[in-house]
Parts: sequence; structure tokens; C-alpha cells
Amino acid sequence: MKNYKLKIQYDGTRYYGWERQPGKDTIQGKIEEVLKRLTGDNDINLIGAGRTDAGVHARGMVANIHLNYRGTPSELRDYLNEYLPEDIAVSDVKEASERFHARYLSKGKIYQYTLFDGDVRPVFNRRYYTAVDTVLDVEAMQEAAAFLVGEHDFKSFCGNPKMKKSTVREIYDIDIRRSKGYVYLTFEGSGFLQYMVRIMTGTLIEVGKGIRSPESVAETLLALDRTRAGFTAPPKGLCLLKVKFG
Amino acid sequence: MKNYKLKIQYDGTRYYGWERQPGKDTIQGKIEEVLKRLTGDNDINLIGAGRTDAGVHARGMVANIHLNYRGTPSELRDYLNEYLPEDIAVSDVKEASERFHARYLSKGKIYQYTLFDGDVRPVFNRRYYTAVDTVLDVEAMQEAAAFLVGEHDFKSFCGNPKMKKSTVREIYDIDIRRSKGYVYLTFEGSGFLQYMVRIMTGTLIEVGKGIRSPESVAETLLALDRTRAGFTAPPKGLCLLKVKFG
Repeated sequence: MKNYKLKIQYDGTRYYGWERQPGKDTIQGKIEEVLKRLTGDNDINLIGAGRTDAGVHARGMVANIHLNYRGTPSELRDYLNEYLPEDIAVSDVKEASERFHARYLSKGKIYQYTLFDGDVRPVFNRRYYTAVDTVLDVEAMQEAAAFLVGEHDFKSFCGNPKMKKSTVREIYDIDIRRSKGYVYLTFEGSGFLQYMVRIMTGTLIEVGKGIRSPESVAETLLALDRTRAGFTAPPKGLCLLKVKFG
Repeated sequence: MKNYKLKIQYDGTRYYGWERQPGKDTIQGKIEEVLKRLTGDNDINLIGAGRTDAGVHARGMVANIHLNYRGTPSELRDYLNEYLPEDIAVSDVKEASERFHARYLSKGKIYQYTLFDGDVRPVFNRRYYTAVDTVLDVEAMQEAAAFLVGEHDFKSFCGNPKMKKSTVREIYDIDIRRSKGYVYLTFEGSGFLQYMVRIMTGTLIEVGKGIRSPESVAETLLALDRTRAGFTAPPKGLCLLKVKFG
């Protein structure tokens, strides 16, 4: 058995998210199907660094898998890409140490949310941004985002009301910049709760529209109450850019 | 009646091309539908600078239309974008002189064909490039393309075997460059015959793969025989970038 580290990109539009679910198309499910076909082993378990929600995209998902396989890593990559649907691609395969575990050993993730607030919605990348009908105040959004950076209890920004484990996470950085009609929100953190990036984005959109003040975000954080935060921004604008290790 | 000049972008994937056809989704048809709705006038004729084939995209199609409309050009643009499907957008509307005619007055067009010859096919823009399974020899393609530049009879590169009008056209420039796994072929010319860009691209792909020599393209041009040119490259890689006037 060898342990392989995979870097994966996908257009999440038509999937029920990363995680395997019986009878539903998921990213993990599709890749495991191809690996079962390759190895003849039905006991395949592809370990992703995280679980993206339905409709969320990835450019740099990382996963690992223990396989009985005799080919080279690039043969494994090419085999996967030959049989995967065209909205999923394995960008890279490397042999990893036996102890490498994509979920336990991940030290951080970078997500990017893409907004468009220009006059004419571009057609070619329409599945990868969310359009807003007001020109956003990026400075106000940056001011609000600064309150979210650091180690905090993000209970107000957690989509799972029954979350029993700790809702404390650390955000290292939130970068917000405007470029040619787009506003890009880049979140780097130790890890993120369910819908956390999308709820932070929804809240920051409300700040950008002037519906709420930047300071209200600090109060929302302290309230530990999901109803105090903004709406959950749609999945289509969100992309997992990178998973960091060690 | 005012004459409006429209700049239009579209993802052609799910359309039967530009030209209106009864019972089929076409770009011209979709835009005319919205204009009929706006004006209540059923005698609408949107004049495109050219006709793109089924599955071909555009970033800068230009068209003109005579309308009884009292709003501003940007109100017209916004109305169109509100009712058009999300894979068609009107980037710009300007009032034009009464004599402006998008087809008769167009002086040239720029088309771009996007190829990908890298190891891993990118997923996000997969509808907008054609993948080839051999690393292309871009220098040989450039050498071959040089034979096509200038005024020639392009009968060998015309998809319509019953073409009765002149098949003489002038190509001002063909630029071929590699960037990050992609090879971009940019064709600028006075006008193009049916499938002409796609047949030139198919022929240049064969040169890039080493299946035919650059010199064979000069011979093909002189033969005035479609069977001597290469295959018709698929529509998905092709995009009308720009239409030039006066």
C-alpha cells in the first residue's frame, strides 16, 4: 500500500458537495468510483482536507488515499483524469509518507469569494461569481473584516445550530480588493465552520451595501448568535483556493 | 426611429449560432425576443456584423437595430440584460448614425481560437478551449500560418462546397502564442468564410502535431480544394473577439 497526495480542482455547480452520499453525485464519490475501477478494491477511502458544500468550487483541494497501485504518480493522475467527468480534474499526484493525512495535518485553508457589482454581468465565468445590485463600499467591508481576523468564537457565523464541538477558529487574514468590476474576498484561516465563509461574506456584503455598519460585525461576533449575522451568500461565488500543510 | 449600436458577449454552448431560426434557440432570436417585448413591435430586425456558428462564443459581437424607443442607451442595455438569459449579455449600447450598418460597414474581425495541450485539462473554462493530446510545435504553426496571411482565394478553407460568391478574403494577421499550457491563435481579417477559422485552425493543429508540413499549407491554399485542408476544429474553442469599423 502506498499513500498518495492528490491536488484536485472542480467546478462544484452540479455536485452535492465534496462528501460521498449514496445515490448523489459528489466529488469524493466520483473520484472514489474511478479509484475502485482502477484497483478493483471496493474499500476505498479518499480523505479530503475538508468538505466543500454543494455548489462550491475548488482550485486546490487536497486529499490522500492509500492504494495498492504499481504505476507512477503521473500515471495515476492521467488514469483519474481520463475517467473523471470534465468538471473534476486531478492537477497533481505525489507519493506521500505513510502518515500523511489530508484532514488531520492540514494547517490552514484559503477560500476566495468572488462578487461582481459592475453594470453588465460577464457571461463566461457566470458560474463562479455572485452578482450584487449595489456598488459595494470596499473600505467599509475591509474595516468590518478586520474585526473577524484573529482567534474568536465564530458561533454567530456557524451554519449548524446543533454544533456541539468548539466553534473557536482562527482567521489569519481577510483580504478584500476590487478589480475590474469584481470584488474578491480572500479568507485565510486555520479551518472554517459550516457555511462560515459564506455567512461572513453575506455579512460583509450587507456592510458594503451600507445596510449595516462595520462595527456591527464586532457586536455580532460577541453575540454568539447566528441570527445576528448576515445572510448566507450563495455557494457559486466560493472557491477553495489552497490547503496549507506543516 | 433611432439606430442603436450594440456590443454583445455570449457563451454559444447551448445555441444554434447567431442567426434567427424558427423553433431554435439562437443569439439573434433571443435578443429580438426581448426587443419585441420592450417595443411591442413584432417587426424587429437585429443586424449582426457576422454570423457565428452553433457553439461559437463572442466577446465583442456588434449589431445594430432601428427602434422606436424613448429611453437612454444605458436604459436599453439594462432592460436587455434584465430579460436576456445569463449566457448572453449586452456589454454596451450607443446611439449610432442612421446609416450605421453592422454588417455592411464592418471593416474587419478578430477571432481567437484557444487550444490546450498541457497535461491536466483545466475545468473552469472547459467550454472555451479545445484540448489536443500532443504538445504542439508552435514555431511550425507560425511558419504555416504565414502562408495564409494576405489576400488569397480561401476556397480550400471554406466549409460551404456550394459557395457561389467569391471566396477571396484578406487575412491581415495570424498571431500564435503559447501561454501556460494554452496555445492561442488570433486571426484578424477583412471577413471570413463559413468555418474558415475552424478549418485553418484544424489545419494548423495538424502542422503543430507534425502530421503535415508548414509548406503543405501553401500548397493547400493553391489547390482550391476543401479536401486538401485539415479537419474543422470544434466550435467550442472559437470566440469572436472584436469587430472593426472604419
